[in-house]
Amino acid sequence: MLDKNLLKDIEFVVELDKMKTILRQTSIIGHERREDDAQHSWHISIMAMILYEYNDEKIDLLKTIKMLLIHDLVELHAGDTFCYDKEANKGKRAREEEAIEEISKKLSGDKGGEIKELWFEFEDMETDEAIFAAAMDRLQPMLNNYNNNGGTWKKFNVSKEDIYKRIEPVRKSSEKLWEFVEYMIEDAENKGFIRKK
Amino acid sequence: MLDKNLLKDIEFVVELDKMKTILRQTSIIGHERREDDAQHSWHISIMAMILYEYNDEKIDLLKTIKMLLIHDLVELHAGDTFCYDKEANKGKRAREEEAIEEISKKLSGDKGGEIKELWFEFEDMETDEAIFAAAMDRLQPMLNNYNNNGGTWKKFNVSKEDIYKRIEPVRKSSEKLWEFVEYMIEDAENKGFIRKK
Repeated sequence: MLDKNLLKDIEFVVELDKMKTILRQTSIIGHERREDDAQHSWHISIMAMILYEYNDEKIDLLKTIKMLLIHDLVELHAGDTFCYDKEANKGKRAREEEAIEEISKKLSGDKGGEIKELWFEFEDMETDEAIFAAAMDRLQPMLNNYNNNGGTWKKFNVSKEDIYKRIEPVRKSSEKLWEFVEYMIEDAENKGFIRKK
Repeated sequence: MLDKNLLKDIEFVVELDKMKTILRQTSIIGHERREDDAQHSWHISIMAMILYEYNDEKIDLLKTIKMLLIHDLVELHAGDTFCYDKEANKGKRAREEEAIEEISKKLSGDKGGEIKELWFEFEDMETDEAIFAAAMDRLQPMLNNYNNNGGTWKKFNVSKEDIYKRIEPVRKSSEKLWEFVEYMIEDAENKGFIRKK
């Protein structure tokens, strides 16, 4: 007799495969192909593992990585919203709250509740772990843009002001990472990757 | 003055983007496109988070996820070796040991050493964490094959005996998961996804 909870969880695990087909705006470095949610989530999870020692405060790495692994699951229902698209971002939170509610029902036992809590913690960006997780989530596409001759910054004519606003969680989490980010953005502007404000 | 260790680590983080272009044999469910190392690594890391409670022994989830996040990094140098290609697998371990040596030099401080240790622990498959990690690494492509009308099992005419050999780590880690795997493989055979031995 197969375990019913396990079958429910396996069904969810199979559904997760769809994350490999949800495209983001950011392109893979040196390629035309845009990255998808699964690739992005892996990249920022391993980034957290490598860079968390630069965080000013000690953080719980497991909780941080869990947040990063699950943070985009809402896009299974709500789709990807481009961070610099102000109009599309207006209803984003409500759409995503509905999505995380639906998704949390797809797991057995307490696991749906845990994922919902992790998602709200990530979105509310108040704990040290959530701020560092947001820093990873925002730094990675910037690294790709910087190494892709401007990438989406150039394609969508994003202002320097908007980039600094978006990358703010890095300033709140790590002095050393922030120094690097400031250097990268100024250098990107000098190279013509970002429009002068 | 930018931190030299950080710059070294950021360079590595940028190189990791290449994992999004290293294709495996397994296809995404319902798609012709094969999955890549980044997608696969994300999928099995979040699977560990969801399924580790079914493991017979209590395991260290952080260590398990770290192993899964880094286990395929060797393919940055050594490329992907298809698990059922017996000829190609002959020199695999030596190629990959050389690769992990090179990769571990690309990180600052003790981090390269940690990644090397995690990789050897994963490959040696002796600890409970490594066995469960291997179970996730092997179960995920099987779930894709099962939901893809046989996928690589059918394409490469893989025998049931070889599939059972490959999925052995699940038997060693979880009674409940093993029951499910046995059901899935027998059902796959009944559906004609696997050749009769």
